Amino acid sequence: MFKFSERINNLRKEIVNKEFEAIFITNEYNRRYLSGFSGSSGFLLISQNEALLFTDFRYIEQATLEAPGFEISLIENPKTWLIDQINKLDLNSIGFESDNVTVDFLEKLKKQFSDKNSKINLHPTIGITSKLREIKSEEEILLLKKAIQISDEAFNSVSETISVGDSEEDIAWRFEKLVRELGGEAISFDTIVASGPNGARPHHKAGKSLIKEGDTIVFDCGARYQGYCSDLTRTIVVGNPDKFSKKIYETVLAAQETAFALLESGISGSDCDSLARNIINESGYSKNFGHSLGHGVGLEVHELPGVGPRSKNIISENMVFTIEPGIYIEGWGGVRIEDIVMLNKGKLEILSNAKKERY
Amino acid sequence: MFKFSERINNLRKEIVNKEFEAIFITNEYNRRYLSGFSGSSGFLLISQNEALLFTDFRYIEQATLEAPGFEISLIENPKTWLIDQINKLDLNSIGFESDNVTVDFLEKLKKQFSDKNSKINLHPTIGITSKLREIKSEEEILLLKKAIQISDEAFNSVSETISVGDSEEDIAWRFEKLVRELGGEAISFDTIVASGPNGARPHHKAGKSLIKEGDTIVFDCGARYQGYCSDLTRTIVVGNPDKFSKKIYETVLAAQETAFALLESGISGSDCDSLARNIINESGYSKNFGHSLGHGVGLEVHELPGVGPRSKNIISENMVFTIEPGIYIEGWGGVRIEDIVMLNKGKLEILSNAKKERY
Repeated sequence: MFKFSERINNLRKEIVNKEFEAIFITNEYNRRYLSGFSGSSGFLLISQNEALLFTDFRYIEQATLEAPGFEISLIENPKTWLIDQINKLDLNSIGFESDNVTVDFLEKLKKQFSDKNSKINLHPTIGITSKLREIKSEEEILLLKKAIQISDEAFNSVSETISVGDSEEDIAWRFEKLVRELGGEAISFDTIVASGPNGARPHHKAGKSLIKEGDTIVFDCGARYQGYCSDLTRTIVVGNPDKFSKKIYETVLAAQETAFALLESGISGSDCDSLARNIINESGYSKNFGHSLGHGVGLEVHELPGVGPRSKNIISENMVFTIEPGIYIEGWGGVRIEDIVMLNKGKLEILSNAKKERY
Repeated sequence: MFKFSERINNLRKEIVNKEFEAIFITNEYNRRYLSGFSGSSGFLLISQNEALLFTDFRYIEQATLEAPGFEISLIENPKTWLIDQINKLDLNSIGFESDNVTVDFLEKLKKQFSDKNSKINLHPTIGITSKLREIKSEEEILLLKKAIQISDEAFNSVSETISVGDSEEDIAWRFEKLVRELGGEAISFDTIVASGPNGARPHHKAGKSLIKEGDTIVFDCGARYQGYCSDLTRTIVVGNPDKFSKKIYETVLAAQETAFALLESGISGSDCDSLARNIINESGYSKNFGHSLGHGVGLEVHELPGVGPRSKNIISENMVFTIEPGIYIEGWGGVRIEDIVMLNKGKLEILSNAKKERY
């Protein structure tokens, strides 16, 4: 279904003028993206002419089924498996993913090479494949939409059931069960249900706290479908929101809608973050929004493009990413609202469709 | 509840004669073991006199609550956060976990140091904390027993419900739901339900295959309780096992019982593996048992001690580990039987208590 040969060709174009002849892929998401192999252990070596996948005996059969575009190679001898293949391919230099390879693993590779008197050069690289993953294909967008639909539906159902006295972790578990029953492989990250003051911590996990009348609840959740992740946040109020809650909520919503309004203009991630953030700053909460406005989603819940203060790249066609402003107030709680969006033929498309309160 | 100061002192004893004055901990399990902090992002720096925990704004509150023995330090400036503290502590050399730190992260640390003209030495280390984790404390054993009890009970219930026509993934999901309902935080790894020929792949995930009459099913599962993991495998037959299935099953069981019988004798992991493996080899299946006999369990599903061909260490008191021989036959399927055991005052204690067939 995915066009793996196209992906590999795109990668080859990226490395053709680099100082190495082949790239060694160790990151599991990049491995899956380039090869289709979804097992938890394996390596790719891709040159202009060859595409090899290395794995151990546990995954040989699965790799053969999932990655037909690759020559599958069994890792038998831990001291020679890579150098033997490199020698066959007559390579002099390979790039490796330096933000994934550990210091120790690199030493072991170097030892393989020196034991065989090889003069291979190893070049650190960062982000070559993850940059390719930034723009989604039609097939990927379909899977993302399905993941989003699952978490939207699960959230809509669960939000109807939340009552005073429920524990955060019970609510999170109800969400997770629904995700699975609706066909999701798993939740895409540990569900956040942060009630009352817990909401002040953006990454509070669902815990034993019980829901109280009047609590705001930050509910941040996602589903995974065929490897692709969704990410959704809604803030709900149990009972009637007071004036203060309404004000904070409306401010966050206005920040999100500002971002939405700007996205069609060919804006950079950092400008989008800054203009949405201004809405929050002007309301007097400049110190209460301590994270980026958004991030890409795909095989990982957090991937490119960045949509934050340091994201210089222009948001463009078929990037899929979140817009999620928030305000967090120590002792009181928090509000965050997060939707997944994309640019589709120049128009903003909001892919998330979960219920959203308006006061 | 845990004696963190004892753990830190044990670590200090390990490093007192090393070529570095402090150790920088990046591995999440080691971080939790030494500090109690269970968040997903943070670092420890432990010298003979100081114990620091670094984390970002998301986890400051949680770290302060969970790791009272540590001075909590907020990571604000990505370019100076570590060197500023190191300079305060007047350190000249630190060890780092080279099997966890990526090449890129090490470069970033070195850059921090060189930007401030620091002459700090960075020494790669491997396995110092994981070696400490090998022997479990009383409190850890209680948590492990609870995790084991949860997966035993969930397995016992689910195994009663397996019928012809069920899919592997449905069975796995029933197990997972029970683990959660019984108080487990999560399953400790993706449940393996490998029916019929799928059982030939030791790490087959539960998939869409439907259970057929006469199938052997390798069911490998675990629960996590307060961070501690269980790991259990049973092989069951749907309907009546044929003579061949019985023979394979009895061979694997005999290999396991051989290991049990030897463990009290103060044996090394490799000798235990080899003597149990002999039972399988003598039955003519030497090529059909392609993994180690066992492995330690604790905060990680796979940790020290190793119980395999290369494990020279003696199995000793309060190590908690699996014994899991298997036979895998391409086209037919597999049998694996796995229990968690420990030596308690010199006696073998089998901690797993799930139903086990005997023919």
